[in-house]
Amino acid sequence: MLFFFFFFFMMFQSYPAVTDYLRSGLFRWAGDAHAFKGESYIELVCSPNNPDGSIREAVLSSEAGKTIHDLAYYWPQYTPITDRADHEIMLFTVSKSTGHAGTRIGWALVKDREVARKMVKFIELNTIGVSKDSQLRAAKLLKVVSDGYELERADEHTDRLFDFGRRIMAARWERLREVVKASGIFSLPEFPDGFCEFTKERTGIYPAFAWLKSEKAEIEDLESYLRSQKILTRSGKHFGAGSNYVRVSMLDRDETFDLFPRPAYLSLR
Amino acid sequence: MLFFFFFFFMMFQSYPAVTDYLRSGLFRWAGDAHAFKGESYIELVCSPNNPDGSIREAVLSSEAGKTIHDLAYYWPQYTPITDRADHEIMLFTVSKSTGHAGTRIGWALVKDREVARKMVKFIELNTIGVSKDSQLRAAKLLKVVSDGYELERADEHTDRLFDFGRRIMAARWERLREVVKASGIFSLPEFPDGFCEFTKERTGIYPAFAWLKSEKAEIEDLESYLRSQKILTRSGKHFGAGSNYVRVSMLDRDETFDLFPRPAYLSLR
Repeated sequence: MLFFFFFFFMMFQSYPAVTDYLRSGLFRWAGDAHAFKGESYIELVCSPNNPDGSIREAVLSSEAGKTIHDLAYYWPQYTPITDRADHEIMLFTVSKSTGHAGTRIGWALVKDREVARKMVKFIELNTIGVSKDSQLRAAKLLKVVSDGYELERADEHTDRLFDFGRRIMAARWERLREVVKASGIFSLPEFPDGFCEFTKERTGIYPAFAWLKSEKAEIEDLESYLRSQKILTRSGKHFGAGSNYVRVSMLDRDETFDLFPRPAYLSLR
Repeated sequence: MLFFFFFFFMMFQSYPAVTDYLRSGLFRWAGDAHAFKGESYIELVCSPNNPDGSIREAVLSSEAGKTIHDLAYYWPQYTPITDRADHEIMLFTVSKSTGHAGTRIGWALVKDREVARKMVKFIELNTIGVSKDSQLRAAKLLKVVSDGYELERADEHTDRLFDFGRRIMAARWERLREVVKASGIFSLPEFPDGFCEFTKERTGIYPAFAWLKSEKAEIEDLESYLRSQKILTRSGKHFGAGSNYVRVSMLDRDETFDLFPRPAYLSLR
């Protein structure tokens, strides 16, 4: 049995900041799981990963340890759904599934009743529960998306959310990759195709963020360089990488996204 | 200058629980301010007080101390607005002003820019900001209420929220006081009238909760006694008082409230 509940979504990249801020006696941020020594921990697995879109698995294993899978980006518009996710604690959000980030609603699927009870108790103590306005809106959104796939109208695939989203993401990534390749200055991660069990077809990986790298020594601080070109990105420094990387949102509105992947912008000026 | 922002409302009576839960190294719950010894503190002043409706003032004073005024119940339907509130940090909520508790929106008026900045930062870290759905709804609600009082339609007073609320609260309290008096078993706090600077008239205090006391030794556990009569209340134990007290909501819907202040219920059976 899985326990399901809504919660306010906490961005996992902000976990170190929250942990430091509260100075809780219960836990502290221990950094990269690969470098962790010990038996007692909570490992956060963000898969597909933010910012680079890679598929991740837990790297620690211990009886005393717990693993939380942040599956915010495990949706067909971003990546082939290769497996039915079956982890102990799985987190999701309407922010990245339907695009309703402002609604601030996530949900959790949790196997252990006692863990679920503690999570619900924490939500109650932290905020006395989640906005009912947001819960009603999220429930309606998820129902509409789900109903679209249950009606089995194979001829109207393009109306359905994940098909629509994958089409848009594939087109944006194709365009960006062409321009990046032509520039000779930047690079993007390469991903293998996979078979999507949800849509029953092979598909590429089209992450919500482009993890753009500068391949030229002249551009050490890529965020600053792009800002000077009026392109706002987030430096790799914030993600444990170098300043020669930036994270670029691939989810902005068409009129904003369309300003970005143009040869004139993605060349040295 | 006052800084204004929305936040998720945290119920102040739950502060001890939250503090214990997080085990923060930054602060701990120190109990009743009257018993506090020290220079460095955050005093929470809930006025009108929950549960008993009394007007409260800060009891501590120190250069190093901070005071937070929880003015959730400082609205004309509950109490005469005798002063323009002018404290350092003041908290409000749509829950008790307009009745939209499920929207989970409060706001703060803060004099010190640096304190306001920290509060906003905490909200951002804790939940990445407040549901936009809730913020839009709350802003609309507050605008409608405010507009009602700016139009100066003296002949349509009864349409306006606080006048409506005060009429309902006065009628409920009058009815409850009559039944309690007739019972000879229970008592309620007595409050002085006051001049309301908002409505420009003398008015009584009609708290959101009735702080009901058993005056009979046979009824030691008033919450259990009332539960046996199918009346759900909250024991005084949870508010630092004895189990001969209960907190009764005066804000339920008419059909629920109407079940309560009947002579048959408020007598020993």
